[in-house]
Formats: sequence, structure tokens, C-alpha cells
Amino acid sequence: MNLILFEASEISIPLTRKDARAVHLLTVLRRNVGDTFDAGLINGARGKGRVAAINADSVALIFTWETPSPPLDPLVLVLGLPRPQTARKILQESAALGLSALHFFRAEKSEASYAQSTLWSTGEWRRHLVTGAAQAFDTRLPEVTHGLSLPEALSLLPNGHHSIALDNYESPQALSAIALDRPVTLGLGPERGWSASERDLLRARGFLFAHLGARVLRTETAVVAAVSIVKARLGLM
Amino acid sequence: MNLILFEASEISIPLTRKDARAVHLLTVLRRNVGDTFDAGLINGARGKGRVAAINADSVALIFTWETPSPPLDPLVLVLGLPRPQTARKILQESAALGLSALHFFRAEKSEASYAQSTLWSTGEWRRHLVTGAAQAFDTRLPEVTHGLSLPEALSLLPNGHHSIALDNYESPQALSAIALDRPVTLGLGPERGWSASERDLLRARGFLFAHLGARVLRTETAVVAAVSIVKARLGLM
Repeated sequence: MNLILFEASEISIPLTRKDARAVHLLTVLRRNVGDTFDAGLINGARGKGRVAAINADSVALIFTWETPSPPLDPLVLVLGLPRPQTARKILQESAALGLSALHFFRAEKSEASYAQSTLWSTGEWRRHLVTGAAQAFDTRLPEVTHGLSLPEALSLLPNGHHSIALDNYESPQALSAIALDRPVTLGLGPERGWSASERDLLRARGFLFAHLGARVLRTETAVVAAVSIVKARLGLM
Repeated sequence: MNLILFEASEISIPLTRKDARAVHLLTVLRRNVGDTFDAGLINGARGKGRVAAINADSVALIFTWETPSPPLDPLVLVLGLPRPQTARKILQESAALGLSALHFFRAEKSEASYAQSTLWSTGEWRRHLVTGAAQAFDTRLPEVTHGLSLPEALSLLPNGHHSIALDNYESPQALSAIALDRPVTLGLGPERGWSASERDLLRARGFLFAHLGARVLRTETAVVAAVSIVKARLGLM
């Protein structure tokens, strides 16, 4: 937790002592009454928190908001719903890397059971975004959708992006060989890959196909690798 | 386990049924007597294994070796000893990404306790390399040292490499701004960063300093990001 993040609804009420942020403040950062710390308002400003009081059950905090966070990077990910444990890592890494949106679509080769995970049904997914943003010292969270079909997810994409689908099987070129000079949408299949009809749909929507070399990477590694290569090409990393 | 890897000492004796590879073969891949699977000899050839017999306590395998694995990528990592859980991820990711060597050095800002971890004392570290190589469908493992000082680690580095130290605090340029046309050695500090004397030593050895942008990344994410950017610049990804 490089930046301790709060929802707008939380900033006028004390934190319970059991809240992970209270534990972090008091036991890791060892803050006492009067001490300050780096704080952020989710999707809002960064600033300072100050410990106003430490009670038996709660910690009272006072905030001073300073600078707005800069906008997220013009990078969108569309990816086939992976197993929940993989999705958790991708949510956190994507927020840390500053993506502006993530669309997890129901791929033909996704396991249907993945969509039933408590990750999605309990809202747990948002917690992983907050962890990633806090790590990166940012307040902004990527927009996330899950459970859409691929056509529905594609219909949400901004115009004017380079659109690149990663595919280790049917790609004529490496991702590094594609010249990039404007925002990028990256498509990734689920762990078992794109179906033929998904490939056809992506081609019809103007996606180029690219690979990440001959090595078979885990999905979460491929996400960090591809996003980093794209950010470097855009001078953002 | 995209490729099931074996030590040279293991290929003429049956696998015990409790071995994770036997469990994977019989319960995930559902192989029966006579069936084949993709196998590799660690640091050697790839080929096929065949299930010769399934006994109460063991599985007998027969191998046919076909093609040698291509050499690893000309990329070396020198990094300050991180906490063991972070080192585990870096070992696995580095092997999956095809680095040829990893040197974990005792940094001034590394916690001394990290070096005492069973990760290093039991040889567990090598298991994470095997997992990463198997994921990437490779047989080759990076060379690893741990416990050297920074001068000792630097003395092991090959000549003729671009040498780049990542540093979010004192870098004049982004990693993406550095032109690369030959093998690369990347230096990363420990989680708490480089010391002043370590920075001086790196500069004296010709390291350029570069950053990965304004976002604060976990060490394991920074490793995947930096390696991917470098591999892309060299046309390897």
C-alpha cells in the first residue's frame, strides 16, 4: 500500500480498527495521533491523511486533498474470461500498469464455471483493482466489464485505437514489429485460445494479429509483457 | 506443465506415483499405458515420453529425444535479493521468459534475513526455474547465483552487453528511450532501492540508468515489464 485509498463514502466516518488500512497505518507505517500519510480518493485526488484519534474500535482520520491523479493510459484490454485466480492477478496488474479499461468476455473456450466465481458475484474483483492502483500510487481504477459476449465487448471499444489480438498460433508477426502511434486495444483469448469464429470476428473488426515469440507464457505474464511492450512503444514506460 | 521435464539422473528409473509429474500425467493429461506426452531433459533435448507401465507405486516411462532446445535469450538480470515470496515469482517468470542468467546479490538495502530462507538453503529455488521452463515449453534453465556481493555479481557478467540499471529515482530517461542492438544486462535494486554506493559502482561499470515510468510497480512486475521491453527491442517478442 504505497497510497492508502478511500471511497468517497468513507472519508467522513472513522475506520474500524479491523480494516486492513487501519492495521497497515498503525502497525506497518506505525503512525500515531497527529501523524500524516499519503492518501487518495478512489478515482479522485491524492493528498494527505492525518490520524486525528485512535480509539478502542476505530481510527479517526482527517484528509487534505491536493493534486488530481493524471488520467489513465490510453490502453484497453479485451480478454477471454480466465480462471478466477488468473483474473485476480490480471485485475491487480492491469490497475498497477494504468490501463483505462478491461473487458472480460465469455469466450467460446472459457469454462462456463469461471463466470460463477465469487470473484465476480461478490464484487471482490474491485478490491484487486484498488490493490493495484494503491501499489502504483494512483487513485484511478480501470473500468471493468465481465460477462459480456465478444461482440458486446467489442461494441464498447473506443474508436481510433490500434487493435491488436495476441495469438501464438495464427500470427504473422511479433507484437514488437507493429508500429504504434496512437491508443491501443489489446485482445487476448482465454487460456485455451481463440475459436475460429472469434478470430473471424476480430479480423472483421480490423484487429491485427501478433505473437509474443515462441515461448508459451501464462496469461497473466502475457498481459504484463504485452502491455509493457505497447506502453514502451508509446513512450509511456 | 506444457512440457514435462526430467533430470538426466531420472530417465532410467520409474517415477513414484506421488511425484507431481506422475499425478499430472495420469490425472490431468489422463495418459494410459502406451500413450505419449511431450517431455524434456533439463538443459537438454525435447522429445516424447511414453507410459510403459503403471504400477501400484510407480510409473515406468520410456523416452525418445528429438530436437535440442534453442539457446536461451542473451539477457542477464542482476537484482538485489528480494523477499523470498517475490524471488519465487521472479525465478519462475525469468525461466519462462528465457533469461540466460540471474544473479541475486546481497544489496545494502536487502533484509539480511532473506538470504536465510529455505528457498535458498534447500535448493527449492531450482524448482521454480523448472516450473517456468516447463510452462514456456523449454528445457533450459537460467544460470542462477545468490548470495554474492554486487562487485562479485558484476564480475560474472559477460562482456559486450548493454548494461542498464532500473531506478525510478535517479534516471534521466525511460527504458524505452534507449536504443538496443546487442545483448542486455538489466540491474534492479532490492525493494527499498539502490544505495548511493551501489549507484556509484554501477555508473563506474558503464551502466546507464533508466526508469519504467511514473507508476510504482512490484519488483516481479517490473522484471516482466523490463525484460519484455528489452526482448521487444531486440525483436525477440
